Amino acid sequence: MTTCIGFGAHEAHGKLSPLRIERRALRDDDVAISIAYCGVCHSDLHFVHNDWNSTVFPCVPGHEIVGHVTAVGAGVTRYKVGDSVAVGCMVDSCQHCAPCEDHQEQFCAGMTPTYNGKDRQTGDLTYGGYSDSIVVREKFVLRVPASLDLRFASPLLCAGITVWNPMRRFGIGKGSKVAVVGLGGLGHMGVKLAAALGAEVTVITTSPGKADDARDLGAHHVLLSTDPQAMQSAFNRFDFILDTIPTRHNLNPYLMLLGRNGQLVLVGAIEPLEPIHGGLLMRNNRSIAGSLFGGLQATQELLDFCAEHNVLPSCEMIAIQDINSAFERMQKNDVKYRFVIDMQSIKDVRID
Amino acid sequence: MTTCIGFGAHEAHGKLSPLRIERRALRDDDVAISIAYCGVCHSDLHFVHNDWNSTVFPCVPGHEIVGHVTAVGAGVTRYKVGDSVAVGCMVDSCQHCAPCEDHQEQFCAGMTPTYNGKDRQTGDLTYGGYSDSIVVREKFVLRVPASLDLRFASPLLCAGITVWNPMRRFGIGKGSKVAVVGLGGLGHMGVKLAAALGAEVTVITTSPGKADDARDLGAHHVLLSTDPQAMQSAFNRFDFILDTIPTRHNLNPYLMLLGRNGQLVLVGAIEPLEPIHGGLLMRNNRSIAGSLFGGLQATQELLDFCAEHNVLPSCEMIAIQDINSAFERMQKNDVKYRFVIDMQSIKDVRID
Repeated sequence: MTTCIGFGAHEAHGKLSPLRIERRALRDDDVAISIAYCGVCHSDLHFVHNDWNSTVFPCVPGHEIVGHVTAVGAGVTRYKVGDSVAVGCMVDSCQHCAPCEDHQEQFCAGMTPTYNGKDRQTGDLTYGGYSDSIVVREKFVLRVPASLDLRFASPLLCAGITVWNPMRRFGIGKGSKVAVVGLGGLGHMGVKLAAALGAEVTVITTSPGKADDARDLGAHHVLLSTDPQAMQSAFNRFDFILDTIPTRHNLNPYLMLLGRNGQLVLVGAIEPLEPIHGGLLMRNNRSIAGSLFGGLQATQELLDFCAEHNVLPSCEMIAIQDINSAFERMQKNDVKYRFVIDMQSIKDVRID
Repeated sequence: MTTCIGFGAHEAHGKLSPLRIERRALRDDDVAISIAYCGVCHSDLHFVHNDWNSTVFPCVPGHEIVGHVTAVGAGVTRYKVGDSVAVGCMVDSCQHCAPCEDHQEQFCAGMTPTYNGKDRQTGDLTYGGYSDSIVVREKFVLRVPASLDLRFASPLLCAGITVWNPMRRFGIGKGSKVAVVGLGGLGHMGVKLAAALGAEVTVITTSPGKADDARDLGAHHVLLSTDPQAMQSAFNRFDFILDTIPTRHNLNPYLMLLGRNGQLVLVGAIEPLEPIHGGLLMRNNRSIAGSLFGGLQATQELLDFCAEHNVLPSCEMIAIQDINSAFERMQKNDVKYRFVIDMQSIKDVRID
């Protein structure tokens, strides 16, 4: 075992502070990673606040991890010391159930989340990427292509794959008419990725002030949801609406905008929504689909795609010492569009 | 023009009574049909009650029509006098928009419903199949295969296609685990068709008394939604849930039963539903899809499939004179599973 430094919360709503955590001795198929950058996901905040009543403390969040290999187990074949690698929302799964065989490890009943999970062999609590290093089973380590700037890659591991997976599932590409609702960590990646896939992208927003931002990200059009005439003129327009709003809201105004066989995909709100109108779904054979991040193969595909097409998340770099104020700003949506912790900063941390 | 006899309502909630209606002189591409049987759909009742605030009176309902060709226009090539034919929910469309080109004429903006529609050329009100005859554009006339018993074929034209279309869209077949919620006109066809397609079929019901009926229709299993343990043991079980409940209800208990990438398809409720839980959709990448009957090609495919596999709706035959009491019974769900009007009975009707 190796002792390393993490930043974690000791109780619900507690401030994050440095703590010593253990990383296991390398198993045959393990890769040890020095963490260079870790993205800050809204779910990190939910876990620290124990919003889902499932947090085990201390909680060291972080599942948007990139870094370099520092050691490998005896049986590791795909990585060597020095490789640029990434770890996303999960670090293990059973590898033999139907979801695992279908490359949807996120739905394996035995999937181990990167933090707040239990090691499949020992039952030990897993600690995430707000830390200087991590040890992960080779299978769950992804390769960061050389041409992908490591500083900006980390948000792809959760925000990116969460919007990439449904776009691939529903065949978004050239000619697709895509709308993105909500312009946060997930939404901004939705705009960039849909545009890179060749879709015609519209950002739907309540705020005229976001129009320039939306266009800067690559949106071709901006639709103000507060303008009834503009909304009406967009009836039946879109093939695909990516809905990243993280709280209870009303889907009906967006459903009306879907054309034949169109999908509204929910990636944000994991709570009850306003009542949907059945007739709006029947008209045009519309559907509402949920989507939960993505499997290993799809995540590697995303990293390769972003390297090839030079698609990078828009990040605001912070030091690990700034994490508590970053959480506060994130609650006020005061970030464009993802905080990324430069883990170089953890080298200055001392625990007495 | 030809004068014929229909049964219609003169005002909202009015009793249906005989009236004289005009059928147009044959256009080049028209087919005249002597109606042998007409199914009674729940939407007939809605239109008579003007539940959707769109009914033009007098209203002669009926869009599950089978009969025989009695005359054809000069340009008709596919039908000749004596042929067994069928007409469903629509009698015309523009034929050149994207929905029409994709064989989804039901979504053509210029689609003419079989009744309560407007003729595309004259603007005249359309009258449905509660009548001794009808004139329909050849393109919208379907062929009833010789081996399909005409007495039982009519409910395929709406109830049948409404459940067939989503099953085909989502690839239901051998190995699919299908559940059907609601055992009325649509639900009973869902059971029969899913079973004929090779699926493993479960009927979900609140009523233990329906178990035998469900099995008689071809269901392999019955799941009592009032039994929490049975419901819990069915979590993640189904690939496809056909939800035929026609009124506001709670989808969440059914969503939990869907496995990975599973669909719940709404074909009944065209009103606001209870709030759905976003997290239930994200888990397993579930979706809720609406579906509105089906196009001409799919409806012909259904008729051919039912002929080949000897799948027939379960019908209760009535005389046209019984239509008002049939409506009353239908409101109490007192029908197994579809009323069909034997139009021979209209020959006894006299209008003074």
